[in-house]
Amino acid sequence: MLPYKNLIIIDKNSEVPIYKQISLQFIDLIQEGKLLPGSKLPSTRSLALDLHLHRKTIMAVYETLVSEDWIDSQPRKGYIVSPNLPVVRPRSYHKKISPFSTKGKFDFDRREIIHFTFNTDSKNNIIIDDGFPDTSLLPFTTINKEFRKSLDKVITKDNSKYVLDSAGFKNSLQTFLNQTRGIDFSFENLFITRGGQMAIYLAASLIIKPGDKVVVTDPSYFIADALFEKLGADIIRVPVDDQGMRTDILEDILKKQNIKLIYVIPHHHHPTTVTMSVERRNHLLELINIYNPAVIEDDYDYDFQFKYDPYLPLASGDHNGNIIYIGSLTKVLGTPFRLGYMIATEEFLAAVSKLRILIDLKGDLIIEQTVAAMINSGDLARHIQKTNKIYSQRCDLLCNLLNEELNDYINYSKPSGGLALWLTFKPKYELSKIIKHTHENGLSVKSNFYCTGKNAHYNSFRFGFASMEEKKIRDAVHILKNSVKKMY
Amino acid sequence: MLPYKNLIIIDKNSEVPIYKQISLQFIDLIQEGKLLPGSKLPSTRSLALDLHLHRKTIMAVYETLVSEDWIDSQPRKGYIVSPNLPVVRPRSYHKKISPFSTKGKFDFDRREIIHFTFNTDSKNNIIIDDGFPDTSLLPFTTINKEFRKSLDKVITKDNSKYVLDSAGFKNSLQTFLNQTRGIDFSFENLFITRGGQMAIYLAASLIIKPGDKVVVTDPSYFIADALFEKLGADIIRVPVDDQGMRTDILEDILKKQNIKLIYVIPHHHHPTTVTMSVERRNHLLELINIYNPAVIEDDYDYDFQFKYDPYLPLASGDHNGNIIYIGSLTKVLGTPFRLGYMIATEEFLAAVSKLRILIDLKGDLIIEQTVAAMINSGDLARHIQKTNKIYSQRCDLLCNLLNEELNDYINYSKPSGGLALWLTFKPKYELSKIIKHTHENGLSVKSNFYCTGKNAHYNSFRFGFASMEEKKIRDAVHILKNSVKKMY
Repeated sequence: MLPYKNLIIIDKNSEVPIYKQISLQFIDLIQEGKLLPGSKLPSTRSLALDLHLHRKTIMAVYETLVSEDWIDSQPRKGYIVSPNLPVVRPRSYHKKISPFSTKGKFDFDRREIIHFTFNTDSKNNIIIDDGFPDTSLLPFTTINKEFRKSLDKVITKDNSKYVLDSAGFKNSLQTFLNQTRGIDFSFENLFITRGGQMAIYLAASLIIKPGDKVVVTDPSYFIADALFEKLGADIIRVPVDDQGMRTDILEDILKKQNIKLIYVIPHHHHPTTVTMSVERRNHLLELINIYNPAVIEDDYDYDFQFKYDPYLPLASGDHNGNIIYIGSLTKVLGTPFRLGYMIATEEFLAAVSKLRILIDLKGDLIIEQTVAAMINSGDLARHIQKTNKIYSQRCDLLCNLLNEELNDYINYSKPSGGLALWLTFKPKYELSKIIKHTHENGLSVKSNFYCTGKNAHYNSFRFGFASMEEKKIRDAVHILKNSVKKMY
Repeated sequence: MLPYKNLIIIDKNSEVPIYKQISLQFIDLIQEGKLLPGSKLPSTRSLALDLHLHRKTIMAVYETLVSEDWIDSQPRKGYIVSPNLPVVRPRSYHKKISPFSTKGKFDFDRREIIHFTFNTDSKNNIIIDDGFPDTSLLPFTTINKEFRKSLDKVITKDNSKYVLDSAGFKNSLQTFLNQTRGIDFSFENLFITRGGQMAIYLAASLIIKPGDKVVVTDPSYFIADALFEKLGADIIRVPVDDQGMRTDILEDILKKQNIKLIYVIPHHHHPTTVTMSVERRNHLLELINIYNPAVIEDDYDYDFQFKYDPYLPLASGDHNGNIIYIGSLTKVLGTPFRLGYMIATEEFLAAVSKLRILIDLKGDLIIEQTVAAMINSGDLARHIQKTNKIYSQRCDLLCNLLNEELNDYINYSKPSGGLALWLTFKPKYELSKIIKHTHENGLSVKSNFYCTGKNAHYNSFRFGFASMEEKKIRDAVHILKNSVKKMY
């Protein structure tokens, strides 16, 4: 309820009757959009109490407003502002304009850092995403059960609630990471974030000063690019080939320039899905030991291997504490479970944890506890195993269809795992136009496509097959094929 | 499982038998902490396949390891690393040190911005918090039911999942805010964050450049202070009295200096709980219209009124788009439900939404949907009403006890609502010492206390009564009284 006591002003010296004064002020409130159509009004008794008036005065107010169709009386329910009033916008009735509809006079950072747009209305189209898991495969009953238990644990009133923090989840996650990644680290080297992106944000924000030189691959993960740009970095791009980052070119750069940070995705590179070879990894580790840049290893995709045959992360090697290892469970569980982690030196994490407090205080205890339970019970490992098989089948299907239907128009390498395939169209076939055409014909590419502006030469996009059932993959390739055939 | 294919190296030209080479490498892996006690080993068959060796060779490996007590054989289960091994740390066996145990060589922002420490081990003590809700009062069954529905909606596989965003929650929240705050704003003026702190972080990060002058109250919310400091602001402090911020002093400052941002908490000021009077609010709005600084109105505590008698937010007045209004549902629902919001001009929110993507991509869809359902059903409003009554009783009790037990030692003003009371000890009674004494005697003050360093002159702390049952409040005051009596 609005605070009528402070809003309604009564002038006892006025010639206008009090009931009329109040009625007019109610009409003002309705016209100004402060009292919306359908809103409940206080009872005559409580409003009379609030305004220190006789109940009869308030009844006269309401009768007036009812007779003028501003409010309705509902039997046994009281009075409401009439739902049938035209949509109330101050401009319609008053000269008054919402202060938020102006531009505001203060200055702020207006740089357009992010150059992509996420949304294209495509309700009925098949959608190709950037490489997200199929959340319909999640063990719904288990998650719900664990959530219920976690909710209970977190909101139960007892002293132990005050020591509730991420420790339990950290323990479970540490075990999980120990079993899968061969990285030698302690509990104090682990920090939990809301997803991999937050970990990148925290690390980059502490490391990069405006003007600092940051090495990324060409191409790279576009959101990380935008972040480094926002922080004022001078971005230097190193090409990738089928073995990953060109560490020979990186070495030349390191010899001549003072590189503050290297951002690298050795495993299932984003966007190209290439996995860095052993030689390049060893070379990179050598360079790290000689030149001591900060290194962010973004290992977002480690858990997805079609045949279990990954290279161990760079962070499992000798890197002198220069590597900040970042991973994410969001690729495993889906966007509702935004959990990431950073493995780094204790010194660095002390600064990370303080910055994190300034951003959003802390993470989601309920979600963390839920996932911790799933790690401990083995449900997470089972889920990874099950979905890996399914994603592998979907990848196989996609590759077969691409070979059958689009062979003359495309190049691609089958990824060794993961949720997406990097699909390149031969230069003659302009992908930006193809995507527009398929959008009109039932297929929307909502993944990261590199075919416009300074990225035009890639002429590629990520085909996120993992979240698509067989029929959708078939239909998608079919529509692609038809569009290309019609256009060329 | 570890990727043995890449880890185990076989030298066919060596004099050392292959089974021995492999056994030694397994022992290395165990000693380096890459294979932990209790870990499952691959079957002889699958390892043989991976290493392209005869199964008999692998059986010889495992027999060797069993005989030397490195691994155990479990009937029908296979082989595991012996759980009875001593805790394996590289230093114990190898000279090898975890790369994360070093300090790292790269430079990063080492400024100590946050000067408080959150954790004091106090497992069995009564704890006084900074003013948090009593989560045991939450409608657990309702929340669980709504969460289940939200989980289902969010992870179900259909095309509509791709347009799942905060829109539904925004709609519900907009209705809730319209009904309670009298602020005139559109859907486009509303942005959802993970708690009020994230909203402050986003707004301040876009507005403050190093060297910019920022006005805050003295005292103010310490986390906001730390944030502004981190962003390089030149912080100017304006005193508060029993009417709130001294807007006369603010006016002098605005006349002489170029103020970029004013951070103000007009309702239940943090930490002092004072509510800004109507005169000061009107004066502040005048100043905003003349000088056009950016203004962050932190309205974290609006929903808690003991008698429903609040002043409307500054943002409901005429501010020319200069006010960024920030609120939070975390005070209502508790820390597991980290939901905040920002009302600002569309232009500003365009920049806010892009920066947010760089930080953590997006919010918690499941939590948002759950709370949206509670708003729509009226459960949220009922919860606020119920808890307001209980918090009001707890506040009354605390005030009576303070009057009875500690009257000679303290000053305080009973707050008009909210979750905490600002308790000041007369200068003779050093709060920093009292708090140490009570900590040894069963009472830990974990709220924000202003009694050390440059804050010593306040000699005050926030007594978060809302989360404490009657007996705890009695015991807490009792312990305080005893400590003071013993010390003075």
